[in-house]
Amino acid sequence: MAGEFDLIAKYFRPLAGAEGLELVDDASCVSPPPGMDLIVTKDLLIEKIHFVGDEAPSSIAEKALAVNLSDLAAKGAKPLHYWLGLALPKQAEESWVADFTAGLKRSQDKFGISLAGGDTTASPGPVIVSITAAGVVPKGRMIKRAGARAGDLVFVSGTLGDASLGLKSVVGELPVSEDLVQRYLRPEPQMALGQALLGLATACADVSDGLLADLGHICEASDVGAEVRQGDLPLSAAAQEVLRANPGEWPCVFAGGDDYELVFTVRAEDLSKVSLVSNRLGVRLSCIGRIKGTPGCHLVDKEGLLVQTSRTGYQHF
Amino acid sequence: MAGEFDLIAKYFRPLAGAEGLELVDDASCVSPPPGMDLIVTKDLLIEKIHFVGDEAPSSIAEKALAVNLSDLAAKGAKPLHYWLGLALPKQAEESWVADFTAGLKRSQDKFGISLAGGDTTASPGPVIVSITAAGVVPKGRMIKRAGARAGDLVFVSGTLGDASLGLKSVVGELPVSEDLVQRYLRPEPQMALGQALLGLATACADVSDGLLADLGHICEASDVGAEVRQGDLPLSAAAQEVLRANPGEWPCVFAGGDDYELVFTVRAEDLSKVSLVSNRLGVRLSCIGRIKGTPGCHLVDKEGLLVQTSRTGYQHF
Repeated sequence: MAGEFDLIAKYFRPLAGAEGLELVDDASCVSPPPGMDLIVTKDLLIEKIHFVGDEAPSSIAEKALAVNLSDLAAKGAKPLHYWLGLALPKQAEESWVADFTAGLKRSQDKFGISLAGGDTTASPGPVIVSITAAGVVPKGRMIKRAGARAGDLVFVSGTLGDASLGLKSVVGELPVSEDLVQRYLRPEPQMALGQALLGLATACADVSDGLLADLGHICEASDVGAEVRQGDLPLSAAAQEVLRANPGEWPCVFAGGDDYELVFTVRAEDLSKVSLVSNRLGVRLSCIGRIKGTPGCHLVDKEGLLVQTSRTGYQHF
Repeated sequence: MAGEFDLIAKYFRPLAGAEGLELVDDASCVSPPPGMDLIVTKDLLIEKIHFVGDEAPSSIAEKALAVNLSDLAAKGAKPLHYWLGLALPKQAEESWVADFTAGLKRSQDKFGISLAGGDTTASPGPVIVSITAAGVVPKGRMIKRAGARAGDLVFVSGTLGDASLGLKSVVGELPVSEDLVQRYLRPEPQMALGQALLGLATACADVSDGLLADLGHICEASDVGAEVRQGDLPLSAAAQEVLRANPGEWPCVFAGGDDYELVFTVRAEDLSKVSLVSNRLGVRLSCIGRIKGTPGCHLVDKEGLLVQTSRTGYQHF
């Protein structure tokens, strides 16, 4: 493979915006425009932990950006820049880098962002992709996790469980479903929705660890609880089909990670505004529950009885 | 080990400042004060590549912060925040995390910075520490690599080669020298010097890849060349002793990485201002060469003859 600095010049410099100083410096200068706050997030993706390793490099790149952009979406932020830390085994081929950066380019074009800097290094084994992403919101208006209040309605975008079922399909635990595999491989961060929720959502998180876990984070931060109706959880046609044959996979829906939908809360009186956002953006938004004054994030069935859940989401340790 | 979220609450939350929102959100809100630019840098450190692995966790933490802060120092920035991505093997002990975060705390107190957010995850093998650090400079005044002009003097802070010789001591290729090992394990970023060079240095880089490589980056970015006098390279007493017995280790001085000193250029008429900075801060600053109008970064001996160098610095691929 070409040397580190040649790789940077050939593949990464074309991805850099003005704030990246053409990547000839080891740092970048990023200041938010007047009246805006800079929102920063960071996610680390590691081969064998966050991706299998035999995916197309472009798909790994797009996913790594998507999971970071999803964090910005949950804050209502418009994404601007990202920094990339990339570690590759010494035997990596230059074609891997070429395809990886092609994936970054596609995402940059799609989301209007640019590479601001980073670090390229050797890895003793796994491919490691570390991304820090920055976006902006009008000053003081970032949507936090801590704003949910008792009586608020709980909404979720899109459909749940697809990515988790897709991963099981990839590793051979379920029959192959191309739709579900694509949801796992190429998550779509809800950027437009996040920005539309500014001033409307009282709290928001992206569904990365699992619905009950991420809604649980909102509840803990807000010092409230939540009741979620299992029957109202939105399912894709593909997920419905898999669950009919494999009802034991239901935890993928409420505890599976990687869907990168947004779960958010709104005041009950703002219900109609949510419909307007849904119609305007063409994004499915489902009311799945309600915030309670007492702690705990519970799943209930049609009769309002507690569904026993042995797991709520992914933990690394 | 405790679960991911318990670890965050117990060890990382106490390190967070207000901008980190107590780490209950997946993103942080960081806006530079009026009149300041935000400078961001990112470095990835991986076990077996950037550190041996049996160092004290606190030492790994301090080094990971130091190499990022050193990038900010080279820009003249005052550090404010950092984001931490940490991947640990599943068998990691909680005591490892406790010592690692104790190291972070020491560095935070020393440099006046706070943890703004990050990501904790499992690793399939190596410990991975990904840090993004942000600092501020007065608007438009960041020191770049691209400002060196022919005739400028080249300076370097401190002494060179110590960290590289220290690493050789750690891995048994040279006799143990505690002074040199400490330089390798606990680099000291030149934060005060970087800020003092604002408006004085025409270009600056930190010596992380090796003197000739890092000065070479300045030359390429500035479209100039440089001549460095080997006899003027500043050496510690410990390095002098090792080099007397092992003259074959001289490349550690001009091509060894990890010293985290600053190499910078100034206009010839500003020579006396450099002395003032050196005296005020108590930092050794040595004039080691001069910028030329022709490309190439060359090392010369007392007679001005070219010293043949087979390597100039570290490349990962």
